[in-house]
Amino acid sequence: MLADLTVEKHQQVVEVADLKIGGEELAIMAGPCAVESKKQLLETAVEVKKRGAKILRGGAFKPRTSPHSFQGLGKRGLEILATAREETGLKIVTEVLDSEDLDLVNQYADILQVGSRNMQNFGLLKKLGQVDTPVLLKRGYAATIKEWLSAAEYIISYGNSQVILCERGIRTFETATRNTLDLNAIALIKEKTDLPIIIDPSHGTGQSSLVKPLARAGIGAGADGIIVETHPQPEQALCDGQQSLTPEEFGDLIADLKRVAAAVNKKIIA
Amino acid sequence: MLADLTVEKHQQVVEVADLKIGGEELAIMAGPCAVESKKQLLETAVEVKKRGAKILRGGAFKPRTSPHSFQGLGKRGLEILATAREETGLKIVTEVLDSEDLDLVNQYADILQVGSRNMQNFGLLKKLGQVDTPVLLKRGYAATIKEWLSAAEYIISYGNSQVILCERGIRTFETATRNTLDLNAIALIKEKTDLPIIIDPSHGTGQSSLVKPLARAGIGAGADGIIVETHPQPEQALCDGQQSLTPEEFGDLIADLKRVAAAVNKKIIA
Amino acid sequence: MLADLTVEKHQQVVEVADLKIGGEELAIMAGPCAVESKKQLLETAVEVKKRGAKILRGGAFKPRTSPHSFQGLGKRGLEILATAREETGLKIVTEVLDSEDLDLVNQYADILQVGSRNMQNFGLLKKLGQVDTPVLLKRGYAATIKEWLSAAEYIISYGNSQVILCERGIRTFETATRNTLDLNAIALIKEKTDLPIIIDPSHGTGQSSLVKPLARAGIGAGADGIIVETHPQPEQALCDGQQSLTPEEFGDLIADLKRVAAAVNKKIIA
Amino acid sequence: MLADLTVEKHQQVVEVADLKIGGEELAIMAGPCAVESKKQLLETAVEVKKRGAKILRGGAFKPRTSPHSFQGLGKRGLEILATAREETGLKIVTEVLDSEDLDLVNQYADILQVGSRNMQNFGLLKKLGQVDTPVLLKRGYAATIKEWLSAAEYIISYGNSQVILCERGIRTFETATRNTLDLNAIALIKEKTDLPIIIDPSHGTGQSSLVKPLARAGIGAGADGIIVETHPQPEQALCDGQQSLTPEEFGDLIADLKRVAAAVNKKIIA
Repeated sequence: MLADLTVEKHQQVVEVADLKIGGEELAIMAGPCAVESKKQLLETAVEVKKRGAKILRGGAFKPRTSPHSFQGLGKRGLEILATAREETGLKIVTEVLDSEDLDLVNQYADILQVGSRNMQNFGLLKKLGQVDTPVLLKRGYAATIKEWLSAAEYIISYGNSQVILCERGIRTFETATRNTLDLNAIALIKEKTDLPIIIDPSHGTGQSSLVKPLARAGIGAGADGIIVETHPQPEQALCDGQQSLTPEEFGDLIADLKRVAAAVNKKIIA
Repeated sequence: MLADLTVEKHQQVVEVADLKIGGEELAIMAGPCAVESKKQLLETAVEVKKRGAKILRGGAFKPRTSPHSFQGLGKRGLEILATAREETGLKIVTEVLDSEDLDLVNQYADILQVGSRNMQNFGLLKKLGQVDTPVLLKRGYAATIKEWLSAAEYIISYGNSQVILCERGIRTFETATRNTLDLNAIALIKEKTDLPIIIDPSHGTGQSSLVKPLARAGIGAGADGIIVETHPQPEQALCDGQQSLTPEEFGDLIADLKRVAAAVNKKIIA
Repeated sequence: MLADLTVEKHQQVVEVADLKIGGEELAIMAGPCAVESKKQLLETAVEVKKRGAKILRGGAFKPRTSPHSFQGLGKRGLEILATAREETGLKIVTEVLDSEDLDLVNQYADILQVGSRNMQNFGLLKKLGQVDTPVLLKRGYAATIKEWLSAAEYIISYGNSQVILCERGIRTFETATRNTLDLNAIALIKEKTDLPIIIDPSHGTGQSSLVKPLARAGIGAGADGIIVETHPQPEQALCDGQQSLTPEEFGDLIADLKRVAAAVNKKIIA
Repeated sequence: MLADLTVEKHQQVVEVADLKIGGEELAIMAGPCAVESKKQLLETAVEVKKRGAKILRGGAFKPRTSPHSFQGLGKRGLEILATAREETGLKIVTEVLDSEDLDLVNQYADILQVGSRNMQNFGLLKKLGQVDTPVLLKRGYAATIKEWLSAAEYIISYGNSQVILCERGIRTFETATRNTLDLNAIALIKEKTDLPIIIDPSHGTGQSSLVKPLARAGIGAGADGIIVETHPQPEQALCDGQQSLTPEEFGDLIADLKRVAAAVNKKIIA
């Protein structure tokens, strides 16, 4: 199946300043679906940092199915992210939606996120191959593992080998959960490549009560970290509230994950 | 299911110069997967025009899964398309891959095609809403009908109501055919909206021998036209040769479709 | 894909008394999801016969997802079917759910139906290979074409070559329709085998308003007939009412199909 | 989604003689895909017992896609299983394929397995509701969680509440692994019901090298045990060799799982 794949073996570890992703220490990324306000983001940042996150997530440009849904704060959102970084020391991962926005987003992001719907936006991938910033490449919701690795290869072959993969659930016939988190993919990719890979159990399940067991599962499968949606008041979130953890739930999750991490010879430094 | 959909009823007919898409006359689009050379395209153009095509397809910017595959001739391909239009009078439909390329492609295209992998490239959709050129919006290979109509709504709500939908097959568990052409979608969309919709039986099946029966099926389901890959020497095509018709096969297809069209009160003027 | 398939070429035509399925004349099967009462079935039988049906469908043993749903009238249902046959001359197609029921059902049926959920009930398939009655083998809702043909091969290799295939829609990510009718399968199977194949646009769409366009599509793709749910009062049906036609709608359908049939060199004698 | 589901809360623990499935101790089931010979089965039984298995798997009646594949040893296979039980003390889980075979298989099995292709064989489910033996109900490869629980409800509502669920992977668009193990299902079912649920990482991945990471993942997600294919010489197995562990690999797996079990407050007694 993957026999003709030409992704070469790359360094196992992607460095984001002093953080190393893909080594013994698990990468912990948390934050809201979208940057909604300075107050919301800073409050979240402080709370998740206190409980073990090293990287803050938050979308300034949001890919939304409907043009009538909240589209993100844009540049203002990026500025708020930068403020949160200054105040907490957390690194920033945020999505770049369009090749025209890359220069702007790249001024703010420590990690550039490619969303599921853009995994085969080849123009964007080529441009990401020409910057130095690490890229978090989410799997397309219906992309095969081979297509996903080929997308990574676009970025790498254009010059940027700092690629982190993120399994965020695939679309199947099952409708009881928002997506089906494919942990087979974690194990197969760890076997076939040296790319770091993390999981997104928030999108992978779509339901906050399922985030903890699936995060444990992902670490059990060999993932190098997690990215989880966390919001001070999930019920008031402008997007994805039903799958967001409260800061307290996030703290519980990290406590749980520490034990599973140890069982698979990884660790969380919190 | 589609109850909260806000696509409004639009004019049933999209006009491309003197052609009307969505009325009694079926739209016939044909041509190669990719523009490979002036000779190849002009030869194809002459052959498909003679047999009933009114619109010439051909990619200058190609979305390819692997960065190592042929990526298209770019601007040179667009110029060849323009030459074919001058020499044959055929209208041109060609893909725009990236929002940065839109201004360029829009100087050449009579219809701007959005490919399956870009159906939720929201930056591109918004920019397409700001031009006057008709848009052929292919369905994402794993997009629900609701998501597809929401993508159309991006273009329409940003100002361009000239949207033509194109069903090109969805990804399912079945691997005997490249995709599964979803003709339920044709009937449902005809029931729920006034948007013209055509089918692509070439990608929808991935196999040239299946193009004719599925084209007949699509017209039977109510489609407003077809887009089919045609190449002078399919076995030498740089992409999609296995699903391309020869000009003679294309001629046979049109003869067959005329009869089915008549049975559903449509017509092909060839 | 199908290279190692060992289904041999069989006679193209399955004979059910004087009816021939798989030839120039399309097979028209109609009737309710379930036999509910003598009155309901006889009324339906008279109505569908008048409008062109030659074979009456109706379930006496019903496969239901929940144990709390109506399970069918059992033997009493079979007796009602036999009465309808006597009074109208229609042939009977009805489902056998379990190998233990085969002897009983076989005393009543002209065609034994294997439902989608039983396509890989291998014990049942083997026993069906040991009777002389023609078998209508529905595709499993998530069965590949290869698995489906292998199921047919069970019946054939155990001795009964009278197999008619029935495409009834597959399960995909799309939820706007109950199933996705896979018409690629019709064309591929007509190319690879000589088995007759019909379509079930009622289950294939799950919505009565979509039955007509998809039936036209199926005939366009090359199907040898249709099986459609018809009920005197669909809104009162004990199962599948939303996808059942009224007798009048069934009559409209047949009128429409006659024209499409002629366009593909088939006919309906009604 | 599951709102109208009527599976009631049942006892969390299914008892198989002195074994309790669904409590603190994980259930460990291992053995070959099929019983091939007395030598093969006894050797496997001794090896897996030594390394922690408490229950021996092995098929005497095999559901095979093609009628030309090995169909199992039938009654002779059951006798070999009984011999292995006598000699090792392991309990036996084996598949019942057809309602006609239930009385026979029930004379030998400690747990009656329903295979994926039979999950909606309603006649069989009803008969299983009328015996006292615990049932291992595998998920249909394309069954929704709701349909799966409805299948369990058939067995329970007909009188047998000793149902153990088994997630064995679902069919998706991904072809790099044989199936996609759905661990979302584990977490959701643990949240919604009290039924014990185990995983089958052998079928869930189809590749022996992926069994260990996915078994760890499943335990992380909350599964109550595993069922894994183990064969003395996987490369000579009559079925499923590519996904079978050697006894040594099985031993490694158990060592690994003990640590993950401890991290989630479960244990393996080996």
